[in-house]
Amino acid sequence: MQETDILIIGGGPAGLVAALTAKKFYPSKKIILIREKEELIIPCAIPYIFKRLDDIEDDLISKKILSENNILTMIGKVEKLDKSNKSVFLGDGNGIKYDKLILALGSQPTIVPIEGINKKGIFFIKKDFNYLKKLKEEVLKAEKITIIGGGFIGVEIAEELSSIQPFKDISIIEKEDHCLGSVFDRDFVVLAEEKLKEKGVKLVNGRSVKRIFGAEKVEGLVLEDGTKIETELIIVAIGARPNTELAEKAGLKIGERGAIEVDEYLKTSENDIFAVGDCAETKDFFTRDYIPAMLASTACLEARVAGSNLYELKILRENKGTLATFSTFINDSFFAVSGMTEEAAKRQGFEVIVGESEGFNRHPAKFKDTGKFKLKLIFAKNSGVIIGGEMTGPKDQSEIINLIALAIQKKVDAYELSFLQIATHPLLSSPPTAYPVISASLKAINKLIMR
Amino acid sequence: MQETDILIIGGGPAGLVAALTAKKFYPSKKIILIREKEELIIPCAIPYIFKRLDDIEDDLISKKILSENNILTMIGKVEKLDKSNKSVFLGDGNGIKYDKLILALGSQPTIVPIEGINKKGIFFIKKDFNYLKKLKEEVLKAEKITIIGGGFIGVEIAEELSSIQPFKDISIIEKEDHCLGSVFDRDFVVLAEEKLKEKGVKLVNGRSVKRIFGAEKVEGLVLEDGTKIETELIIVAIGARPNTELAEKAGLKIGERGAIEVDEYLKTSENDIFAVGDCAETKDFFTRDYIPAMLASTACLEARVAGSNLYELKILRENKGTLATFSTFINDSFFAVSGMTEEAAKRQGFEVIVGESEGFNRHPAKFKDTGKFKLKLIFAKNSGVIIGGEMTGPKDQSEIINLIALAIQKKVDAYELSFLQIATHPLLSSPPTAYPVISASLKAINKLIMR
Repeated sequence: MQETDILIIGGGPAGLVAALTAKKFYPSKKIILIREKEELIIPCAIPYIFKRLDDIEDDLISKKILSENNILTMIGKVEKLDKSNKSVFLGDGNGIKYDKLILALGSQPTIVPIEGINKKGIFFIKKDFNYLKKLKEEVLKAEKITIIGGGFIGVEIAEELSSIQPFKDISIIEKEDHCLGSVFDRDFVVLAEEKLKEKGVKLVNGRSVKRIFGAEKVEGLVLEDGTKIETELIIVAIGARPNTELAEKAGLKIGERGAIEVDEYLKTSENDIFAVGDCAETKDFFTRDYIPAMLASTACLEARVAGSNLYELKILRENKGTLATFSTFINDSFFAVSGMTEEAAKRQGFEVIVGESEGFNRHPAKFKDTGKFKLKLIFAKNSGVIIGGEMTGPKDQSEIINLIALAIQKKVDAYELSFLQIATHPLLSSPPTAYPVISASLKAINKLIMR
Repeated sequence: MQETDILIIGGGPAGLVAALTAKKFYPSKKIILIREKEELIIPCAIPYIFKRLDDIEDDLISKKILSENNILTMIGKVEKLDKSNKSVFLGDGNGIKYDKLILALGSQPTIVPIEGINKKGIFFIKKDFNYLKKLKEEVLKAEKITIIGGGFIGVEIAEELSSIQPFKDISIIEKEDHCLGSVFDRDFVVLAEEKLKEKGVKLVNGRSVKRIFGAEKVEGLVLEDGTKIETELIIVAIGARPNTELAEKAGLKIGERGAIEVDEYLKTSENDIFAVGDCAETKDFFTRDYIPAMLASTACLEARVAGSNLYELKILRENKGTLATFSTFINDSFFAVSGMTEEAAKRQGFEVIVGESEGFNRHPAKFKDTGKFKLKLIFAKNSGVIIGGEMTGPKDQSEIINLIALAIQKKVDAYELSFLQIATHPLLSSPPTAYPVISASLKAINKLIMR
């Protein structure tokens, strides 16, 4: 039986970063990473394999980074985890003994109990090279495509497909009132939907799919209100569920939300086993409630925490809660959010003060490549501490969301933000007289001192 | 004699922001702003009046923002300040009594004692509409143009002029070894100079100008080593000096570096008089030494501090020191710095650990608009606290310098930065596995724990 110091199961971003971090912090340890598939898809860029990337091959994670860092790789499916003997077993019966184990098992598409869901021509978003290759072939052939689910992935795929020429008929069916409605406040959602419509995407909001019809292959679907939509191809993008089977069978604790239970160091209920990424449970930054965030950025953070805490816990290196920070790009604008939206904050019981700012990303605004932005910052009413931000604008302002994310993580207040010392440049940013974060903070302060 | 509660002298960004801030914090007060000229140039964009902006008219600050905010404007030159009677007098003899006064007197080009400096065809960077209009006319006619001074303004003008077709012969003469050499570390300076050379700009480094020759109009210049350079037009961009004459004559204290002395609330030696922007002295964020920073962003911060502290000082609203944060754009890349460079830190006696990161602004890097970045973070060795950062890359990463600026202002350490929770997106950013700030911080940590 093979032996290793550190074993990582899973080859996605979480597994990869866990392995690389472990190597940096424990350079003398032997590390093996086992993954199921030869090819590793970059998950966040799956929506862009249809047009912006020439080939699906362009969306693969480079494998050489593992060998370059002296991390051994094995291809295979781990069928069994025996935690008392600190061993795992592959499908072919081969076993590996470990000292420390990191589970980065990922997630898979949520099962949807819609009548007709198993017909030909219905695809899910699987991180599988051959499956996606087949999906791309079918997409390029189809003229009418329907996407079920108006979350980030559904919206991004719709936007991408709407650029393929000759133009296709692209629809999104979203059961809530708006696409991205659970992520952004209403005022931003409306702007995002406008951008989708500019690209020709049809939005069918506020209705669920009742059944899918067609002989062998999908021919259309019927909504709960009876509306019939003809379509040649359906892409289902309604979320993912954590892969926990291996952990569950081994007797690791599963949290109430169905993901592997972990502490602040990403340690599972078993001392030498860690879990990171989509398979591990996630707690909210503000409330410590369980949240269903499955983000590559969060996964990488968790992997860095686990990978650096394997042999001794480090108080400065724990995960105190996940600050959901997202961005996406629609037509010509990014849409991004960090922390709480105004609606989410109110729903959770926070009293908030909001500061908004609109303007241009150049100064003067007469430059030919000038674009418009809109920013909203959300502050806790009594302390003035920032708890969220939402922004849309041209690409070159998109990193402002990460400045906001840092501000939230450091509990910066509106006063401090209104005195932020920043760089501005005519060709790169808004003017120093109206830098978005400063202007929005000043607006909030004015509300705070006027009340 | 006219009376006002708050009087602001100067119509540049500092004066404007001081007036608007005062209006927000003291909405019932009467505010008058006096400026010398009818037209207000946006100073940072002066380099771009030659090509990227169609007309100099495009580089004017909108005047209606003052009237919209109920701020009275007067055009005129203040010739005298009588601080005992709290009054100022214009050239035409008209007087205005104030309760609180903010001086935003700006700066003017440094005088250079070069032989022949007064010939025709030699221009300085003056914030004067008609002067700049004349300069633009002359620039468009000339074929050979020489810029004296390779700081930000000189470099930006050279880069701009190098895009005008038919192409002109553009040279920069910089007395130090490199353009921008006092702002960036050597490794970034070399990249910036490459970008200038790609644009066809000729760099004459390490030599001063000895004399300028020509009959009535400039025909060329001679360097200290005897090199002769023929030129039709010279633009001098070697810095600026604060306008302090009015303050000095009125008996306000002038600091050792020649700017108006101010405290942390931007108050001068006289209780009811504040000074902001280029005319006021600036202290360094780290050392509290006087520094010659004259930035619009810093000026706006000072204006916000003064404008909100006029009638009662607010402990949360003081300026504890200027964090110099700059950005510029050359050819296809931004170059930005916040806080200390590695060289500056060592010169000042800080022991530092440096973390670097290079990579791409997309993930995967196969997207057609992918570009390369280079980031360097500078941390204090013992605490691990970030004290500086330098970056170059494509436009859409330029706001990362402001995230770094916030991190410096909040004294964030390398451990915290390596666990930053951020948004990443294939079309907008580097991958979550290698976000620039996180990667560079991890590199620094590895040096810290390995030593």
